[in-house]
Amino acid sequence: MLIALAQINPTAGALRPNAARIKEFFHKARQEGADLVVFPEMALTGSPPQDLLLYGSFAAAAEALMEQELAPLTASPAPAMLLGTCRRLQGRLCNAALLLKKGRVEAAYPKAVLEQRAPFQECSYFSRGGQASYERWGELMAAVAVGEGALRPEHRPLLPQPCGTAEEKRLLIIPAASSYRFGGQARREQEAAALAREQRCALLLVNLVGGSDELVFDGASLVYNNRGELIRRAASFAEDLLFIRAGDLFAPAAEACPAAAEDMDTLFQALCLGLKDYFYKSGFSRAVLGLSGGIDSAVTAALAAAALGPKNVLGIMLPSEYSPPHSLEDARALAENLGLETRTIPITPFFHAYLKELNRSGRPEMDLAEENLQARIRGDILMLIANRERRLLLTTGNRSELAVGYCTLYGDMAGALAVLADLPKLTVYELARFINRKHKRAVIPERTITKPPSAELRPDQKDEDSLPPYSVLDPILQLYLDEHLSPEEIMARGFDATTVQRVIALVDRAEYKRRQAAPALRVMSGLEVRRFPVARGRN
Amino acid sequence: MLIALAQINPTAGALRPNAARIKEFFHKARQEGADLVVFPEMALTGSPPQDLLLYGSFAAAAEALMEQELAPLTASPAPAMLLGTCRRLQGRLCNAALLLKKGRVEAAYPKAVLEQRAPFQECSYFSRGGQASYERWGELMAAVAVGEGALRPEHRPLLPQPCGTAEEKRLLIIPAASSYRFGGQARREQEAAALAREQRCALLLVNLVGGSDELVFDGASLVYNNRGELIRRAASFAEDLLFIRAGDLFAPAAEACPAAAEDMDTLFQALCLGLKDYFYKSGFSRAVLGLSGGIDSAVTAALAAAALGPKNVLGIMLPSEYSPPHSLEDARALAENLGLETRTIPITPFFHAYLKELNRSGRPEMDLAEENLQARIRGDILMLIANRERRLLLTTGNRSELAVGYCTLYGDMAGALAVLADLPKLTVYELARFINRKHKRAVIPERTITKPPSAELRPDQKDEDSLPPYSVLDPILQLYLDEHLSPEEIMARGFDATTVQRVIALVDRAEYKRRQAAPALRVMSGLEVRRFPVARGRN
Repeated sequence: MLIALAQINPTAGALRPNAARIKEFFHKARQEGADLVVFPEMALTGSPPQDLLLYGSFAAAAEALMEQELAPLTASPAPAMLLGTCRRLQGRLCNAALLLKKGRVEAAYPKAVLEQRAPFQECSYFSRGGQASYERWGELMAAVAVGEGALRPEHRPLLPQPCGTAEEKRLLIIPAASSYRFGGQARREQEAAALAREQRCALLLVNLVGGSDELVFDGASLVYNNRGELIRRAASFAEDLLFIRAGDLFAPAAEACPAAAEDMDTLFQALCLGLKDYFYKSGFSRAVLGLSGGIDSAVTAALAAAALGPKNVLGIMLPSEYSPPHSLEDARALAENLGLETRTIPITPFFHAYLKELNRSGRPEMDLAEENLQARIRGDILMLIANRERRLLLTTGNRSELAVGYCTLYGDMAGALAVLADLPKLTVYELARFINRKHKRAVIPERTITKPPSAELRPDQKDEDSLPPYSVLDPILQLYLDEHLSPEEIMARGFDATTVQRVIALVDRAEYKRRQAAPALRVMSGLEVRRFPVARGRN
Repeated sequence: MLIALAQINPTAGALRPNAARIKEFFHKARQEGADLVVFPEMALTGSPPQDLLLYGSFAAAAEALMEQELAPLTASPAPAMLLGTCRRLQGRLCNAALLLKKGRVEAAYPKAVLEQRAPFQECSYFSRGGQASYERWGELMAAVAVGEGALRPEHRPLLPQPCGTAEEKRLLIIPAASSYRFGGQARREQEAAALAREQRCALLLVNLVGGSDELVFDGASLVYNNRGELIRRAASFAEDLLFIRAGDLFAPAAEACPAAAEDMDTLFQALCLGLKDYFYKSGFSRAVLGLSGGIDSAVTAALAAAALGPKNVLGIMLPSEYSPPHSLEDARALAENLGLETRTIPITPFFHAYLKELNRSGRPEMDLAEENLQARIRGDILMLIANRERRLLLTTGNRSELAVGYCTLYGDMAGALAVLADLPKLTVYELARFINRKHKRAVIPERTITKPPSAELRPDQKDEDSLPPYSVLDPILQLYLDEHLSPEEIMARGFDATTVQRVIALVDRAEYKRRQAAPALRVMSGLEVRRFPVARGRN
């Protein structure tokens, strides 16, 4: 028995194109002699289809494709297919894997461990399935459990109970739609190995790949033998078709795969794929962004150039009267190194047009409102270019800035996609250094990496005038936002009380900005989106 | 036995101020001789506290307040208190009502029917409680079920089973946090009456009141006797303290309350309360908005004047070269009628400063990008004023526009709160006429109501040049967005196929704008926020 793992990149909601992709992979697997082709969770619908699931017509269209176009492919002597989709079962909508065999839908396996976190919120759409169980599939005893959640130790009661003899060849198949999160591959593999070892079953996890709005599915589908040894791993961040002989699932590994190595390269690939798919799946191919000479715009530009091709990325330099000469020099050097087209549009004439009408004196008042105004003028210019040239504007802010509100709504926050908004500033630096290593030269100018970060909205401004150093800020933010520690608990870790309180007050006060922030590639925090009440008074 | 229903307006997350408000109401009820004071669901935490619930310190602080400050108030001979909060029960966080009695927490009733929809998403935070049951409370058999969901017929299995004799005095207490939705009061009352009649129990529903970000809790707490007759209803959209003698719960109504009458007045009050609480609970008292002479800004201004007081509302007229003279006249007349301060800032000089630098010809190219630019210049000016004068900018777009994307991101979409964004355009007209009836004169100038709507971003522009008439658009949007019908199903209702397809294509394409839209008062659709994949390809 030859099993194929079809790691495809579907588009959320695009049923027909996804079905076409499924057919292609199925045919390739058939040519190679596969007996069973396993697709990921929600392979037909793409993931997550969100409110499309509220439309009866959507589920009906998925069902029609399944019955009329996909099931017939499996008529004997063709291989069987296990395929994730939404499916009405006993009147209730489920996230299910369907077994297509001999030309028809032979069985349905509804997902038992629903993913509650945004943007999946599966509780809002799906009914829950029950415990999985083993059934005879030819020489094997096979069970299907949809979703990576099945790996978690706390969900063991929903897994099938091994019965029969110890020599039985048990295979647990997990079609998954697991989005990438830095460090998440290692965790997934540890859990999968532990499960296979503990239950003495072989395990296939077939994951989606591709960007879907804020998420990046990372692929890296897994094959374990019944000793819990990882014997095959599919490509990360690319489609793949992997074959495995059933016999190999129940024999010692000739050579086990090395453990997942996550580093800046993985993060770089995740961001590139997320960026590329956001563009292509929305029908765009060209980007525009502001180049300030700073680190965030430099890294964003390098990612965009890698994802879309340098000729599809336009960099705009928008110097203000407060921009030092090195900003323009660094931005130009970066663009030249990456091969980007650039334009330079000083914002001073626009700024003064506003001041003339809006300030009594007609001159700058040097207040925060004017700093924001300059950022918004830049946003207006970039959006004009984006609108006129059918480009998407990339916004370049990092997570640290966005957390404390060190950014301007409708200004530097404007854009279709926030590429770095889930990366702490210190990680942006690490990524910049990785990019230079990868290129084997300083495509990101050394000075961009070493100079103190600045918004350049007033003379000699530095981020550290308003914020603690990032080496202090980032760890505080992590404790507060990711580990959900209280101010007191963070202080107990040795941070200065005044700094902690100031940072947390900034974070809480900036909630309103984040509500209107551009979609961000969530590659560090995974799914979770921090969401607090905006109007929350004070304790 | 005298029972008090304490319908309070807490702030989400503000534990100490909420506890202070609870004490105030408790003391008033005590003075009146109450034996039991019932507060709404999540009265201590405010609702919904969202990700604050992920902080162990938040639940711990709520628990400490409960044990150390609130429970002691109930030491004999003080009344008992039933109070909604988050509470860790057997190690799991629940949305629970606690019975405080004789100075301590005597019982906890965890919510069984969790609210899945955004922004509550209770599945992400809370463990589910089990079936409620009756227990003896003095002369009564009482049961507690948290949340309006307990009223739904499909959740009957979670309600207590009546046992004992038919003469038993059964009382079902429902502490609730039900947000307002036009038409929702009538539904709630039908369900409550049906439940009381069917189970032959008296029923108290104690609801929260007040704005909380996008939601407006409407109060209107209810008292039914065990014949299902509505015998008391608390104030709508205001705090209230209502008393009921236990005896009256088990006797025929001397006089039953009339059914809930929802009309433009209710909607007006809901929007005013939502607006006011959004400001006050965020620490703001003053608003700014652009006045175009059109219907949306006129209605928004009238609501803001009613909610915040006219002297706290600043109207800015921002005429372009394409604005006809009547726009400024109508805007001025409105401001004068409402008593608003105004300023006039023509945007032409700013617009030309951009064109001079950004268009090769230096003159308008009359493309869509320039229309957006004008809207963004207005946004910049309004935000500058808001930032400088510590005002919140109100954005004025209606639901119809936002649905089809007839609005400019970072332009007219800019703002802290979208007051009308959940109202179809036709409802905005109805509300305008109601406001004039209420004032007994045309505070909203008649011409504002009768002239064809226009964005005034190019000469002689009318909404109907780009969109179907609102009398066609609004019903199509309702079928698509609220009833989740497919294009084919909508056509089958008699709408023109080309129009339906055009509208739906516009809606789908505008998803990216809605992702960055300002928070909106959700008074028509209730909780639901439409959320589709942005990058979804095409079928």
